[in-house]
Amino acid sequence: MQPKKNIVHLPVYKPGKPMEEVKRELGLSEVIKLASNENPFGCSPKAKEAIIAHVDQASIYPDGGAVELTAAVAEYFKVQTNQVIFGAGSDEIILMLARAYFEPGDETIMATTTFPQYKHNAEIEGAICIEVPLKDGTHDLEAMLGAITERTKILWLCNPNNPTGTMNTDQEVSDFLKKVPAHVLVVLDEAYAEYNVSGLYPDSIGLVNQYKNVIILRTFSKIYGLASLRIGYGIAHADVIRSVNQVREPFNTTGFAQKAALAALKDEQFINDCREANAKGIVYLSAQFDRMKLSYYPAHGNFMMVDVQRPGGQVYDSLLRKGLIVRHDPGWKLPTMIRVTVGSQDQNEKFIGALEHALNEVAVEA
Amino acid sequence: MQPKKNIVHLPVYKPGKPMEEVKRELGLSEVIKLASNENPFGCSPKAKEAIIAHVDQASIYPDGGAVELTAAVAEYFKVQTNQVIFGAGSDEIILMLARAYFEPGDETIMATTTFPQYKHNAEIEGAICIEVPLKDGTHDLEAMLGAITERTKILWLCNPNNPTGTMNTDQEVSDFLKKVPAHVLVVLDEAYAEYNVSGLYPDSIGLVNQYKNVIILRTFSKIYGLASLRIGYGIAHADVIRSVNQVREPFNTTGFAQKAALAALKDEQFINDCREANAKGIVYLSAQFDRMKLSYYPAHGNFMMVDVQRPGGQVYDSLLRKGLIVRHDPGWKLPTMIRVTVGSQDQNEKFIGALEHALNEVAVEA
Repeated sequence: MQPKKNIVHLPVYKPGKPMEEVKRELGLSEVIKLASNENPFGCSPKAKEAIIAHVDQASIYPDGGAVELTAAVAEYFKVQTNQVIFGAGSDEIILMLARAYFEPGDETIMATTTFPQYKHNAEIEGAICIEVPLKDGTHDLEAMLGAITERTKILWLCNPNNPTGTMNTDQEVSDFLKKVPAHVLVVLDEAYAEYNVSGLYPDSIGLVNQYKNVIILRTFSKIYGLASLRIGYGIAHADVIRSVNQVREPFNTTGFAQKAALAALKDEQFINDCREANAKGIVYLSAQFDRMKLSYYPAHGNFMMVDVQRPGGQVYDSLLRKGLIVRHDPGWKLPTMIRVTVGSQDQNEKFIGALEHALNEVAVEA
Repeated sequence: MQPKKNIVHLPVYKPGKPMEEVKRELGLSEVIKLASNENPFGCSPKAKEAIIAHVDQASIYPDGGAVELTAAVAEYFKVQTNQVIFGAGSDEIILMLARAYFEPGDETIMATTTFPQYKHNAEIEGAICIEVPLKDGTHDLEAMLGAITERTKILWLCNPNNPTGTMNTDQEVSDFLKKVPAHVLVVLDEAYAEYNVSGLYPDSIGLVNQYKNVIILRTFSKIYGLASLRIGYGIAHADVIRSVNQVREPFNTTGFAQKAALAALKDEQFINDCREANAKGIVYLSAQFDRMKLSYYPAHGNFMMVDVQRPGGQVYDSLLRKGLIVRHDPGWKLPTMIRVTVGSQDQNEKFIGALEHALNEVAVEA
């Protein structure tokens, strides 16, 4: 009864403490979580209505083909319905891509540091991970091209990159794709795309129409505010979607998620408002970091990565004691960085206030 | 950009027509679906309340460790919390078991005919499926024992079996497990366990406590009436749960599912009422089948498999035109069988009425 040899070294998810327990332990009445890049404004009221309206259907299996939602997303992006697939978050599409494509010994290319689920899923399938260091916090597309071999199956490009928040531009990604050989599937993970206000963001649907070896991943967990419901989608050439569908579980997304996502997609005003508030939040936080003489990466999602010039874990702990949860991960290998979600203006101000105290408490690295 | 060679032959899920479209096409005002073994009484009102109460948390990631629900299920079954894992339906636990254990060329044993996801997931992982025919519609445990080799990794036992509804007793399963070698993981898929009123059903928690190589799968999709929310669980020795956790996505079940399942688990009265109504439904349907001189398998879940003595596909079509959706699958290789979910008494009576007409319409097989 031996598990696969390539999974035995993998870490097991350690459940975090429930928020109520954190509050009790630290004697706090309010805790602000700016750790998971959730939407501080929640979701569209129309999505909430759709959830409540579905409650009498709880006992009925979801539509395994997500027919209505597929049609809506295809219409929104002007693609065919056989070019769209849904997953329990874009996480599950990453899983399905790994499961559909990797054979043991295949190579896969990703940045370091980037979203950890690419590597996790590749390792489960026995693929060899080629990690290409970021350059100034951004995907180094030239170096990634140089890492491609005949054995490369998938190349992962997280844009904006999690956790750094940096972006590769339309021009950069277009030039890059011209040089990627056809046997390599390029995954453009665009979980934060809807937050982008740079004017330079890739026209990724145009790229899917141009290249058979590109898949875009999007999610309803971020700007759409439906993280609890686990729903994301992929858009690619129909041949790629067909392969992913071959490994998809028949009922992989919930009926509630499908209904909520459909309502959320149609509420463009809510999305526009969230995008605008987020952009203002980035301007505010950037100005505060400048004032505090802290450097940070250019932020193109709904979070910022800032160099606190002190051990990030200690600053994290100090902020936690003040009721502010941010993110610091030793696995990033960016020891003085913390990642903070852009919150509401009130949350952002409380974060800056707490950060000033934290920086006084934690000694600067020698 | 080639997918894995062992997935290219797999069928792609064909989305069914939305119910409203079926109604329109057939000119029906009412359609009764007795096809997917859903709970005709819905779910506990407390589960609905829990869903509605969670709606303002839609934007927050679920608790990846499902801490509260894990504690409740562990308490309910008197096991440790590290013996419990949740999946997006027990479907996802089948997926995770396959992904954690199978290496290409491993063997796996299952009945034919049984739940198709065992074979589907084994094939994705490149495992060799050894299919052991049912004996009188029931798992042939002796023949399954005889099929075990040194390469066998997982043996799947669906009890009650889907689609036949038959059961292997406590005595049979206990005797069987004594003879299964320790290198074989036995999956006891008990999706319909809560419906069992035979008094002979396996004490599967006792078996988990006795054997390290046994995992029980249960679900909230059936008697708990939460199919739309996709949540099921596995109970096994902590070592098995640890391996499955290594391939689990961090946020694999929704916050809504966790909250609803917790409420549903606690509403024992609802479950008792559903079990009782289902048992009465089986008595009613059995008497009607007897009267109609139709043979059927002994039913231990919330569905019955009946021999309509005519091509099952034609009887299915005839019932559909009358607004009754049942199940017939050519893949079963049981050409004159249809499977019907036990509905409410009103639904059961409408089904019997429609079946009598259908049997008049479809010629008996020569």
